[in-house]
Amino acid sequence: MSGPIVVINPNSNQAVTDGLDRALESFRLQGGPPIECVTLTEGPFGVESQVHSDQVVLPLVRLVEQRADASAFVIACYSDPGIDACRSVSPVPVFGIQESGVLTALSRADRIGIVAIAAASEKRHRLYMRRMGVTSRIAGEHALNMSVDESARGTGTFARLQEVGQALISDGAEALVLGCAGMAVHRAPLEKDLGIPVIDPTQAAVSMAIGTVLANPL
Amino acid sequence: MSGPIVVINPNSNQAVTDGLDRALESFRLQGGPPIECVTLTEGPFGVESQVHSDQVVLPLVRLVEQRADASAFVIACYSDPGIDACRSVSPVPVFGIQESGVLTALSRADRIGIVAIAAASEKRHRLYMRRMGVTSRIAGEHALNMSVDESARGTGTFARLQEVGQALISDGAEALVLGCAGMAVHRAPLEKDLGIPVIDPTQAAVSMAIGTVLANPL
Amino acid sequence: MSGPIVVINPNSNQAVTDGLDRALESFRLQGGPPIECVTLTEGPFGVESQVHSDQVVLPLVRLVEQRADASAFVIACYSDPGIDACRSVSPVPVFGIQESGVLTALSRADRIGIVAIAAASEKRHRLYMRRMGVTSRIAGEHALNMSVDESARGTGTFARLQEVGQALISDGAEALVLGCAGMAVHRAPLEKDLGIPVIDPTQAAVSMAIGTVLANPL
Amino acid sequence: MSGPIVVINPNSNQAVTDGLDRALESFRLQGGPPIECVTLTEGPFGVESQVHSDQVVLPLVRLVEQRADASAFVIACYSDPGIDACRSVSPVPVFGIQESGVLTALSRADRIGIVAIAAASEKRHRLYMRRMGVTSRIAGEHALNMSVDESARGTGTFARLQEVGQALISDGAEALVLGCAGMAVHRAPLEKDLGIPVIDPTQAAVSMAIGTVLANPL
Amino acid sequence: MSGPIVVINPNSNQAVTDGLDRALESFRLQGGPPIECVTLTEGPFGVESQVHSDQVVLPLVRLVEQRADASAFVIACYSDPGIDACRSVSPVPVFGIQESGVLTALSRADRIGIVAIAAASEKRHRLYMRRMGVTSRIAGEHALNMSVDESARGTGTFARLQEVGQALISDGAEALVLGCAGMAVHRAPLEKDLGIPVIDPTQAAVSMAIGTVLANPL
Amino acid sequence: MSGPIVVINPNSNQAVTDGLDRALESFRLQGGPPIECVTLTEGPFGVESQVHSDQVVLPLVRLVEQRADASAFVIACYSDPGIDACRSVSPVPVFGIQESGVLTALSRADRIGIVAIAAASEKRHRLYMRRMGVTSRIAGEHALNMSVDESARGTGTFARLQEVGQALISDGAEALVLGCAGMAVHRAPLEKDLGIPVIDPTQAAVSMAIGTVLANPL
Repeated sequence: MSGPIVVINPNSNQAVTDGLDRALESFRLQGGPPIECVTLTEGPFGVESQVHSDQVVLPLVRLVEQRADASAFVIACYSDPGIDACRSVSPVPVFGIQESGVLTALSRADRIGIVAIAAASEKRHRLYMRRMGVTSRIAGEHALNMSVDESARGTGTFARLQEVGQALISDGAEALVLGCAGMAVHRAPLEKDLGIPVIDPTQAAVSMAIGTVLANPL
Repeated sequence: MSGPIVVINPNSNQAVTDGLDRALESFRLQGGPPIECVTLTEGPFGVESQVHSDQVVLPLVRLVEQRADASAFVIACYSDPGIDACRSVSPVPVFGIQESGVLTALSRADRIGIVAIAAASEKRHRLYMRRMGVTSRIAGEHALNMSVDESARGTGTFARLQEVGQALISDGAEALVLGCAGMAVHRAPLEKDLGIPVIDPTQAAVSMAIGTVLANPL
Repeated sequence: MSGPIVVINPNSNQAVTDGLDRALESFRLQGGPPIECVTLTEGPFGVESQVHSDQVVLPLVRLVEQRADASAFVIACYSDPGIDACRSVSPVPVFGIQESGVLTALSRADRIGIVAIAAASEKRHRLYMRRMGVTSRIAGEHALNMSVDESARGTGTFARLQEVGQALISDGAEALVLGCAGMAVHRAPLEKDLGIPVIDPTQAAVSMAIGTVLANPL
Repeated sequence: MSGPIVVINPNSNQAVTDGLDRALESFRLQGGPPIECVTLTEGPFGVESQVHSDQVVLPLVRLVEQRADASAFVIACYSDPGIDACRSVSPVPVFGIQESGVLTALSRADRIGIVAIAAASEKRHRLYMRRMGVTSRIAGEHALNMSVDESARGTGTFARLQEVGQALISDGAEALVLGCAGMAVHRAPLEKDLGIPVIDPTQAAVSMAIGTVLANPL
Repeated sequence: MSGPIVVINPNSNQAVTDGLDRALESFRLQGGPPIECVTLTEGPFGVESQVHSDQVVLPLVRLVEQRADASAFVIACYSDPGIDACRSVSPVPVFGIQESGVLTALSRADRIGIVAIAAASEKRHRLYMRRMGVTSRIAGEHALNMSVDESARGTGTFARLQEVGQALISDGAEALVLGCAGMAVHRAPLEKDLGIPVIDPTQAAVSMAIGTVLANPL
Repeated sequence: MSGPIVVINPNSNQAVTDGLDRALESFRLQGGPPIECVTLTEGPFGVESQVHSDQVVLPLVRLVEQRADASAFVIACYSDPGIDACRSVSPVPVFGIQESGVLTALSRADRIGIVAIAAASEKRHRLYMRRMGVTSRIAGEHALNMSVDESARGTGTFARLQEVGQALISDGAEALVLGCAGMAVHRAPLEKDLGIPVIDPTQAAVSMAIGTVLANPL
């Protein structure tokens, strides 16, 4: 049997990890790879700044080095922290959820929009997408202006997602990426409400990870 | 239970459809979506020219319209014939294997190389990748210079794949896409031989299709 | 004497063909190539969807193959349907009016705007212009939101063209392309009204076709 | 009757002007605009350096201002000297032969190659094409390494054009632009020899100029 | 001792040269290169049109050729007139203030905004920045709509700079370039007022020039 | 008096810091800002891998936070490690030497080449330059294939620099950036030998830092 896909929540908020776990429940299939969600206990409570993003890199590298049993890794923070470093030490594929979320959205529509949690992340995302070479396909990015924790729990989150989604549609977006690891619960309702594909980036990354495992049957 | 992922071989060569079927065997998981490979009987024996690519569009559209039970479609010809038309009539996601193969490779490496079957396809692929807006990530494309049928069967195919793969690595490729629906059998051995990820585009598209199905649990 | 430039109206609306004929009257010069406008009788009444655009490809290919006397072809539908297929079978140059219209506008101004008939075409045009690699020169595209037939005949068309033209000028457009085969009658008045070059794409394509004929004197 | 298309040779070499005149003979049609080739007597004998290119700008502007009878201007030097300044003072369209040659070649093939006269011009051309925003379509540029005068007269020119043309085809060029005002005599033979379209840029610019005149019938 | 950095004001308005001189006072350090500001007496009173920009090229070339003592040149007009020609004749580095201003701003922020004096210059600047290949980093450009002379003297200039600066920040600018040689006096106050870096392009060019001199100690 | 420009060597090799100190000697001018070179004692002996690059980020952030007296910072490692994090905490400008080196080279030539120390760094540099949006100006990058320490000391370094420089010139480079903090001693001789500008990136960054200090006279 293949090893697990190890999905790492780089912040130390166990509620976020639990949410990931629930969001991936339907991706656990008999005969398919196990999917294990782990919390980076050294991480900050939320990755909300550039320094937060950088401080989790070495702990992520160590975790990747320790989990020699993994068949693939998913770094479940939308900044894709440590993606280059983890790839440089891992013998198995490492997926970042921003990268996977954006690429998956590009398979569903020509121009896509990004829903950020906080405006402060937009520049980080923009630099990353320019580095990815896909900016001609990005219609825009708008922020909910909530904390990660609040967006995961808050009752006003869905209404705000609708507003931001409509703004992105006005910008030309034909599909959306939820720019955060903790909004999967809103994916299907928002897709239904807006009438365009909505991508949860962790599901996108796990789907790609499953693909690499299934392409290598034992 | 969700409907099947319908993988359409747009040419009428049943051997190619059978090969797709075998290549996707490991993607059929209990609890996951059924994967059904069908032959477009109106298609030419191989899609090897621009006219071939265009002549399958309307038959593909009709097939998509008939299969209201599908949960997703995959057009399993590397030219992604009819992708725009099929999407315009389908209520469920439609994946082209070129698009999915390229996007999936971009999740595995910065610069990727494409292995074409015939040199005549390279221009068609180039135009499509420019339309996708991803050309800054393409290291190069080289052709095996074989027919689709020959590449699927021929004993010299693997040696030629090694040669072309090495040429693409010299161009800077850090991952490869097999630019044809019928070379999945060579994927794993070639990946092992070259030491870089090799993507079978039909597996990539089916993996993305599975992802859209699993993200919508019943 | 050189053979005719065959201008093909891919829809079966003879009124559109007649309009093309009139719009090209001044391009028929003594000693220059004859210009013949023909209707693709197999075409739909208007090419207004992706499927319409795809369904005319094979009939266009057959027409091109039959007209061995042509010195050049012009496909007079702004989606440039069948351009790749027709080129692959034609021994003489084949011009698409979108491609020719855009390139000609680029010879008149730095940033150009496109007047679409229907909003549904904008995505098709955008994908085509990205494939052309000229998007850095496109200021925007706006739709009249009329049917092809209506735009060719309707009395409100000019007022709507003025509105859309002004919107494109606000976007930065310094020249316009009329994104349809049937609006040539409005070209000169609109150019006068807006004060910037306005390109009729069929005239642009025919002008390029004449250029290839004259560069090969008998 | 419309005024003449004034084709300006910005160098003072009358033999170049005479060559332009002959190259455009077939573009003079009854009922079409007259085509008049004039020599910029203040110009250098050949425009072979950046300073040469800059020193003709003001004389070009004066000539454009004097020829109020023109229906269009063509600046027949492949550096398109003074194109911005001439456009800023002219009430009628001004075409540069580099711009027109490149755009016309883009209507004939996806990737194009440029044949420069001297290697020293390649950088000037590259900057101009980047400013045009079309570099994704340029396969390469190679120089004949001859003087303008020599290339126009020399018996070895054609053999050198074949060599350089083959090199550009190896680079991926599917059509060529002759990067000089004085090589029209070689256009048709070279096109026949290489089997791909070869564009004479002065003919391309004059063809576009004719198009603007014919689109405004008196 | 190294020769002077010769800063050339291409217009004949001595007040502008004097302003440059004051703006560069703090860049004159003991042991560093002398900085000499000179007026191009052949220049127009202000460089405000394309023809103005072109007419100063040859006088600039002559001035560069005469000043064999210079260790570097700075062309202090935001159109960078004559930059290619001056470089082609100068044995020492030649800096244009637009190029230097933009590159320096790119070292301070991801996306930058340009403050033009007059709307008529925006197109010239846009073409230049596209030629530079940096347009993906440009948030926007807005004009003060003042004459060069007025902007250098007028009391309302600062208020207008604040307005335009705020508009550029709304466009996404994270740093600004003052698109004129004569606004250095407003740099520090505007930077303080807006809270983002503001670059005076002449100071940027002189700083780069100093760098080339200091990297070659005698 | 303004505070010092603090140049941080992120590796713990004091010989590299000493080399930086000597390379910047001529940039210390009376009346100008002091330039202080410091060693990041927590850093690895050389920054030669992605993990090395990431592990210095937090120590760099702490150092930046401690040096409240600095007027600007320069991170003197060609990977620009920690540039985003240091900028996010610093009230004064932070320059990365890759960014500054590349931007400065772009002020000297149209297409530039990068001399890497080790081939393993090329991908990291390429991703960074794509993120910068300047790849259309990059002619190529080649590696010396030496360790940082070896390149700083070794007698064969200059010969290897000549080889690699010539290879980059063949690729079209018109100026070079030395892609390492420790090769300043070779800058002037290499520039003389190759006949094109050679940029030492630390000198470039310090020059830009001096510019920001001098633009704010006390």
